[in-house]
Amino acid sequence: MTLEAIRYRPGSLQILNQLLLPQETVYDEIRSVQDGYEAIKSMKVRGAPAIAIVGCLSLAVELQAGGGGEDLVSFIRDSLSHLTSARPTAVNMGRAARELMEFTENESMDKSTEQLRESVIGWIEEMLERDVNDNRKIGNYGAQHILSGVPRDSVTILTHCNTGSLATAGYGTALGVVRSLHALGRLKRVYCTETRPYNQGARLTAYEAVAEGFPATLITDSMAALTMRERGITAVVVGADRVVANGDTANKVGTYQLAIAAKHHGIPFYVAAPSTSCDLSLESGRDIVIEERPPEELTSINGVPIAAPGIEVWNPAFDVTPHQLITGGIITELGVFLPSELQAALTGRLTAL
Amino acid sequence: MTLEAIRYRPGSLQILNQLLLPQETVYDEIRSVQDGYEAIKSMKVRGAPAIAIVGCLSLAVELQAGGGGEDLVSFIRDSLSHLTSARPTAVNMGRAARELMEFTENESMDKSTEQLRESVIGWIEEMLERDVNDNRKIGNYGAQHILSGVPRDSVTILTHCNTGSLATAGYGTALGVVRSLHALGRLKRVYCTETRPYNQGARLTAYEAVAEGFPATLITDSMAALTMRERGITAVVVGADRVVANGDTANKVGTYQLAIAAKHHGIPFYVAAPSTSCDLSLESGRDIVIEERPPEELTSINGVPIAAPGIEVWNPAFDVTPHQLITGGIITELGVFLPSELQAALTGRLTAL
Repeated sequence: MTLEAIRYRPGSLQILNQLLLPQETVYDEIRSVQDGYEAIKSMKVRGAPAIAIVGCLSLAVELQAGGGGEDLVSFIRDSLSHLTSARPTAVNMGRAARELMEFTENESMDKSTEQLRESVIGWIEEMLERDVNDNRKIGNYGAQHILSGVPRDSVTILTHCNTGSLATAGYGTALGVVRSLHALGRLKRVYCTETRPYNQGARLTAYEAVAEGFPATLITDSMAALTMRERGITAVVVGADRVVANGDTANKVGTYQLAIAAKHHGIPFYVAAPSTSCDLSLESGRDIVIEERPPEELTSINGVPIAAPGIEVWNPAFDVTPHQLITGGIITELGVFLPSELQAALTGRLTAL
Repeated sequence: MTLEAIRYRPGSLQILNQLLLPQETVYDEIRSVQDGYEAIKSMKVRGAPAIAIVGCLSLAVELQAGGGGEDLVSFIRDSLSHLTSARPTAVNMGRAARELMEFTENESMDKSTEQLRESVIGWIEEMLERDVNDNRKIGNYGAQHILSGVPRDSVTILTHCNTGSLATAGYGTALGVVRSLHALGRLKRVYCTETRPYNQGARLTAYEAVAEGFPATLITDSMAALTMRERGITAVVVGADRVVANGDTANKVGTYQLAIAAKHHGIPFYVAAPSTSCDLSLESGRDIVIEERPPEELTSINGVPIAAPGIEVWNPAFDVTPHQLITGGIITELGVFLPSELQAALTGRLTAL
């Protein structure tokens, strides 16, 4: 079975409340754009692809229930603007909003309100389907690429943060590669870092691994290099918040350190990301601004203090891994590319082998 | 001021209860060997040098109060054996017990019971003094070595785990180097990793840094490589649980990963340890057995679950850093040596420059 983080059927949306994980598995009903906004804002749903999908689906269910009345174009514009403002750094929601608005404006030229309503809902449902399909492709391309180096053996993967069903519409990017390897019967084990300070690995990836029955082991972030040396890691696979034109990749803090350790051990390092996470408008990683988050993420956990009072804290949420360290390749729904091939591949000048 | 973790005057011993740190600063009275045993066993005191000193001092206060009566040699032997059993992996207590027993047996040949009592107490008091003096030397040698590379500037140090007053008799090893730099007015900042899973960095090093007024910043273990790239780290300085003949060093898990990242950034990597932590009987790090600790250290914090139920865990307490990565040197009370020089230096065939 695949863990369902988003349950959608026409007119109905439920999301797995990630704030209660891993202790409780509770689905929250999303009935309106405002419900969607609040779920994103409060981080009941997280992960850039999942945020965009839940945001758009919340609009679909409100449209299905007759939301927007006669002035549909204004309603959709206001809704998308509101949804985008919930977590402005999540690039996918902004991109989806722009594309859907363009579609809406085009459709509104020659369609009745009811026809427009239907076609916007259809667009959103296709987006959901496309995300899952793209992730399946990422999973399969990544699994094949990793297995091509080890024709017979099962493989051991090390991953970071959460990039699974809980971060996407339902299959996962880096964890999608793990899922595909498991489905092929070729996953020996996946090691997941706890991913301090927000513990997405310990809470969410571990939760998915247990739910799906992956052979999985939790380690602290500090144990990754030792794990590479002692536990026969075949490949490191991580997700991405943003991949820029030269292949430099912004991802959850700690990714850079994993890439250095992988290089030291001669282990291929892969980034798995849909082409929608690639931003060719930026030349290199130097242009990416890194978000810093509150000190409390390090100094307390569930409200309980865990650090000495008065200590200063630096809490960058992401780091940038230079393309030279992405030795395995960048796994997209179009195929696996070296960082140097990425731009040509995404602009159609290069196709996957 | 220097944080006092061990308060000793003849006949009286108090220790800072580290189980209550950083929330509460409470000194516990140690009146007997049994009190000392329990403080070590329950980890009110930790750090290999501190364990040995508190253990021996607990014997000194019981002797001062007349403990042992007339059969002093048996009493000392039984006491040392009991103290060593509290945390058998802490090598320093075992070494101190062997040395003190040998001393006791020699002294007992030609001394009265009361003379023996006095000389054993004297030996233990000298041990306390020697540890602090050795640590001061480590601090000064380390600071000078680091500063020799940067004649005018202040320096920024990255350290791991807790190696300060709380882990030793009172000055610290790696954190002693930081203390010396601070005393010289040359410490720009120290970055301390939180040191998962037991959080010695966040709880103890951060506590010492705040208490001593060091300019200090707490980071997660996963941020170390980013900190090296972005924050101008001059040197990485860590402690050691054991340094073997070829310079390979066992220390708190995460040390190996820091050494790889330091090498990648061309930053000198130092190990600070008294010669008593060097074990020339082992040829290389391959001979060191790594202790694995309970999964609960990763899956809960202060009893609160923080990971998905059912996930498997790997929890090695230490890792071994190969000598090739110890690029700055090994800082001892005899001087700073390259790993290749260590054996000759400790056996008197090489003296520090």
